[in-house]
Amino acid sequence: MIEAAAQRLDGHARKTPLLSSPFLDEVAGRRLLVKPECLQHTGSFKFRGGWAALSAMDEDTRKRGVLAYSSGNHAQGVAAAAQAHGVPAVIIMPSDAPQLKIDNTRALGAEVVLYDRAGESREEIGAHYEKTRGLTLVKPYDDPQVIAGQGTVGLEIAEQAAAEGVTSGDVLVCCGGGGLTGGVALALEARAPGLRVRPAEPEGFDDVARSLSSGQVESNPATSGSICDAILTPAPGEITFPILSRLCGPGIVITEDEALRAMALAFLRLKIVVEPGGAAALAAALFHGDEIQGDAVIAVATGGNVDPAMFIRALEQHA
Amino acid sequence: MIEAAAQRLDGHARKTPLLSSPFLDEVAGRRLLVKPECLQHTGSFKFRGGWAALSAMDEDTRKRGVLAYSSGNHAQGVAAAAQAHGVPAVIIMPSDAPQLKIDNTRALGAEVVLYDRAGESREEIGAHYEKTRGLTLVKPYDDPQVIAGQGTVGLEIAEQAAAEGVTSGDVLVCCGGGGLTGGVALALEARAPGLRVRPAEPEGFDDVARSLSSGQVESNPATSGSICDAILTPAPGEITFPILSRLCGPGIVITEDEALRAMALAFLRLKIVVEPGGAAALAAALFHGDEIQGDAVIAVATGGNVDPAMFIRALEQHA
Repeated sequence: MIEAAAQRLDGHARKTPLLSSPFLDEVAGRRLLVKPECLQHTGSFKFRGGWAALSAMDEDTRKRGVLAYSSGNHAQGVAAAAQAHGVPAVIIMPSDAPQLKIDNTRALGAEVVLYDRAGESREEIGAHYEKTRGLTLVKPYDDPQVIAGQGTVGLEIAEQAAAEGVTSGDVLVCCGGGGLTGGVALALEARAPGLRVRPAEPEGFDDVARSLSSGQVESNPATSGSICDAILTPAPGEITFPILSRLCGPGIVITEDEALRAMALAFLRLKIVVEPGGAAALAAALFHGDEIQGDAVIAVATGGNVDPAMFIRALEQHA
Repeated sequence: MIEAAAQRLDGHARKTPLLSSPFLDEVAGRRLLVKPECLQHTGSFKFRGGWAALSAMDEDTRKRGVLAYSSGNHAQGVAAAAQAHGVPAVIIMPSDAPQLKIDNTRALGAEVVLYDRAGESREEIGAHYEKTRGLTLVKPYDDPQVIAGQGTVGLEIAEQAAAEGVTSGDVLVCCGGGGLTGGVALALEARAPGLRVRPAEPEGFDDVARSLSSGQVESNPATSGSICDAILTPAPGEITFPILSRLCGPGIVITEDEALRAMALAFLRLKIVVEPGGAAALAAALFHGDEIQGDAVIAVATGGNVDPAMFIRALEQHA
C-alpha cells in the first residue's frame, strides 16, 4: 500500500531532501540527518496522507467531497488535495488553532468550521456534515490510506539514508496519533530494517511513549496547553498502536524549551522553518543524545506552520 | 567545465529541490518556482564554487592551502571545502560582515582576518598571505572553476524545471560579481535555451543592470550600506561580464523593503530562511511582475545566512 501510495503521489508530493550541518552533529554528539517535511506542499507531511486518501477514493465518493478534523496541518493537507482534485472540503478546526493554519486552510478553498475544544465535540459536528452533505471523513491517522501516504516519507528516508551510508540507527519522528510514525516504521521494516523508528513527544502529552512502555493504549490528561499544537492527540490510534507497538523503540519526551531551541538551531544551521510540534524529533536528537545509541540519527522535521510571533520567540530566546 | 564540476560535486554538494506555493503564485501573478540554495551546505550556493575550485587544483597546490576574500558566503563555502579536503584556509573578511558569517567561517576551521572596508585594501592583505604562505587565491567570481561550480545550479534548474513542465521564461538570480549568474546562464544556454537569466540587485548597487544596459562595465558608487550584504560587489567581473552581456536579459532592481517582504513570504509560504541579499531574485519575481513576461518565472534564493535580529525585523514588519 505504501508503494502504491508513492506511485499516486509521484509528481504531486515533493521529494524532500536530507539536510545536515557539522554544527548540529556537534550538538547531537553523532551524525544527524534531518528530513525537512516542512518543505512539503502545505508546509507539512500531512499533504502526503491527504493526497493518498483522496486519490484512493472511487470517483463518485470523492466528488461528493471530504471532511476532516484537524488543528491545522492535516486540515491544509486535505484541503490542498481536495482543491487539486476539484472536490469540496469541510474542515473542522479548534478555535484556538494557530491563525496561520486557519487562514491557509480557508485560502486552499476549504470551508472551515471552528469549534471550542473544551465544550464541543468535533465528532458530533463532523457527523452532521457527513450525513447532510454526503462527505467522506478523512481521518488524520487511523486510516490505512493515510498511513500509507505518510509512509512514503519512510521510503524516501530508506533510499536517501543509504546514499549517505547510513543503514542503521534511530529514526526519530514527531508523534501525534501515530500515522506518520507507523507509516515510516512499516516502510523501514521492508526497506531499511537496520533503521528503527522512535516517537518524539512533548512533556505532558507523551501518550505514545507511555503506551509503548506499558503495552496498552494510554491517554493524555489534556488535549491542549502545549506550544506543540500539531501533535497533541489524546491517545495512539486503534490502527496505529499495534504497528507502533510491534516496530518502534522507546519514545523520547522533550520539553517546550527544547522544541524552541531546536527551532532556533534549525533556523541558524539548516535554514528551515520548523513549528514547535514539528521540532520535537529534532529536539530529541539534539538534546537527548544519552537516550540514543549508534553513530548516526535521523530526525523528521514534520511541519513548519508556525505563527511569526512564536518563531520570533524561539529566535529571541535561543538564536 | 560545468558538467565536469557537477561530477566532482556529486555526493558532496546538495541537490536542492524546486519549491513553490499557490500563495506565492498569486502574489507573483504567474507560476513561481524557487531554487532554495539557502539549503546548500554552508547556507549558500557558494559551497559549489568553493568545492569546484579546490577539487580542480593539483594536489601540491591545494596542500599549501587557499585564500579568499568575502563578506561571508564565499568565505564559508571555501572554508568548508578546504576543511573537507584537509587543507588550510585563510579568509579575509570585512569587519562589518554579519557576525553569524564570521563565526561560521571560523567554526569551519578557517583563519579569519578582519579588515576595515573603508581604510584597508583586502587585495594588499591577501597578497601578503599569498606570498608568505604560498596560498592560492580562490576568487569569488572571476575564476572559471568557480563559475563552473556555480553553474551546476543551472544544470539542476534545467532538469527540475523541465520536470515541472517549465521550459521557457525568466530565471532570476541574485547578482553580485556575476559568478552564479554567469554560470547559470551558460548552463541554461546548453540545456534549456528557452530559459533566460536575469540578474536581480538592490537599489544603489545595480552595477550589473546598468552595465547590461550601457554595454560596458559600470561601477557602484559605494561598496557597503545595504542590508543585502552578500551581493554588494563594486562591478561585474572581467570574466563574468562578457558572459552576462551575451546571455542575460535586463537586470531587475529591488528595494531593501522588498527584500524584507520576500524574506517574510519565504518564511510563511516556503518555510525557508533567506538572507536579504539572497532574497533579491525572489523579491523581483514577487513585486516586479510588470517587468517580467511569460507564464512562469524561476527565482534562485541564493543564501540564508542572516543574523536573527535581521530576520526578526523582516517578520515583525512584513509577516
